Amino acid sequence: MIQDEVFKVGFEVRDHELDAQGIVNNANYQHYFEHARHRFLRSRGVDFVGLHEEGLDAIVHRIEIDYRESLRSGESFEVSVVLKREGKLRLVFEQELRKGDGRLSARARVVTAIVTAGAAGPRPVPPPPGLLERLLGEKGPGEDASGR
Amino acid sequence: MIQDEVFKVGFEVRDHELDAQGIVNNANYQHYFEHARHRFLRSRGVDFVGLHEEGLDAIVHRIEIDYRESLRSGESFEVSVVLKREGKLRLVFEQELRKGDGRLSARARVVTAIVTAGAAGPRPVPPPPGLLERLLGEKGPGEDASGR
Amino acid sequence: MIQDEVFKVGFEVRDHELDAQGIVNNANYQHYFEHARHRFLRSRGVDFVGLHEEGLDAIVHRIEIDYRESLRSGESFEVSVVLKREGKLRLVFEQELRKGDGRLSARARVVTAIVTAGAAGPRPVPPPPGLLERLLGEKGPGEDASGR
Amino acid sequence: MIQDEVFKVGFEVRDHELDAQGIVNNANYQHYFEHARHRFLRSRGVDFVGLHEEGLDAIVHRIEIDYRESLRSGESFEVSVVLKREGKLRLVFEQELRKGDGRLSARARVVTAIVTAGAAGPRPVPPPPGLLERLLGEKGPGEDASGR
Repeated sequence: MIQDEVFKVGFEVRDHELDAQGIVNNANYQHYFEHARHRFLRSRGVDFVGLHEEGLDAIVHRIEIDYRESLRSGESFEVSVVLKREGKLRLVFEQELRKGDGRLSARARVVTAIVTAGAAGPRPVPPPPGLLERLLGEKGPGEDASGR
Repeated sequence: MIQDEVFKVGFEVRDHELDAQGIVNNANYQHYFEHARHRFLRSRGVDFVGLHEEGLDAIVHRIEIDYRESLRSGESFEVSVVLKREGKLRLVFEQELRKGDGRLSARARVVTAIVTAGAAGPRPVPPPPGLLERLLGEKGPGEDASGR
Repeated sequence: MIQDEVFKVGFEVRDHELDAQGIVNNANYQHYFEHARHRFLRSRGVDFVGLHEEGLDAIVHRIEIDYRESLRSGESFEVSVVLKREGKLRLVFEQELRKGDGRLSARARVVTAIVTAGAAGPRPVPPPPGLLERLLGEKGPGEDASGR
Repeated sequence: MIQDEVFKVGFEVRDHELDAQGIVNNANYQHYFEHARHRFLRSRGVDFVGLHEEGLDAIVHRIEIDYRESLRSGESFEVSVVLKREGKLRLVFEQELRKGDGRLSARARVVTAIVTAGAAGPRPVPPPPGLLERLLGEKGPGEDASGR
């Protein structure tokens, strides 16, 4: 049941993403994970590029990716997004990339923060309450259309 | 003195690597780190694409990247490569990406292994002795600090 | 009616494809066009990577792209594929990239050939008859399931 | 002598730019050509990202690329830039990509214009005189061969 709530985005391998080993180059997984996160944000009414124009940038502090089974030409896969708050400043995304048959291809943990321009460069700030509510609030995915 | 021994590759930001925030997109750091590793391999007489043609693939099991200070249009930077063996199967790269003025922009730890094609998919094998000698041998970086 | 026959692939902009101008970087259009071509090939039972493993490489000789209206964050679009034979050696793809509302964003003409490894490097060869039949033969797209 | 005047930028292939055919994917040539153009602009005191921040965007209207000889792992190459004005609105770049031994790998013709934000979307404007002077002025490449 909770599983149903997990936000997911479908993809298929594009051949230019392969490298000379005939498998998807590692850096492209980071593109997939990022695209799924941005789609998740948009599904909650948060626009990555719009945030930037308001002077707030969502930035990645740290990323950890475990690679399990390589993606190959013609394969389809899904990337999931689970968001958790850690401390006052951190928003942590836990993501899985699974092939069509459900096998785990890669897993990522992405530590992000909101920064704003300061005199001495970007400075982390607590995510604005309105943003937090949209991202972590009562109205989770799958409940938008509920009868509440 | 030890500093001189560390393998480094110079880069400059290409504008297509920027994203709408005006900073280099996170995935491109993975390209930079990979290119520096492959250049390191080649400097030791090991060819990434050649390995693949011999039936051995160097693959990444896990990558951890800490992002410290974003790269911007027009900036130059250097990526360092230090290689260590861990256990029988793992070759671990420790890498730093520093801007022209020496400030740390990002740091990576990349856990790799050598795999070969098996009946049930790729199977990790201990790096062949000849390969290890070239990568970590007498002239290898792992002994820079040794008393010999 | 003929319009229905045109092969099309749907896409959406991924934010890492934007550059500092906030629009999709020009080179990414080439990725979109290529992915649509490879999907077209696969829909006809022709596998780009498989061809390579048989010693035949489909290569691009020349590409012309006209850019009309930039793609932006969050936009969806479709890429069409029409294939024509020119002379004995050339397969020419005519492609359009249209936004969700039908507006033309870019148009491409891609001149390709089949090459095979020769003593003096790759050498163009006429596309094998079986390949041509699958790509340009009686069984056009949309007719696969027809009652003929 | 004239040859000496042509602006050139050196590159080397990065392995992630290869595709499953073991050659550099076509779209990456567009990255190389673009980076060389932006380096050319900067050498004349014109900053691509800075222009954008002033409300002027240099955009590509059309690109034509002829591919002659594929780039492979480990290869070095140079990209040249020659700029010409065409009509009131167009700045045309003619570019060659040559391998270390001088062999032509690819050639591009890139038609660009300066656009500014208008009520009905971007609108082409004649390049500002100060910009033209820096790009095509007395020290510009377009006059290398002139009789002055």
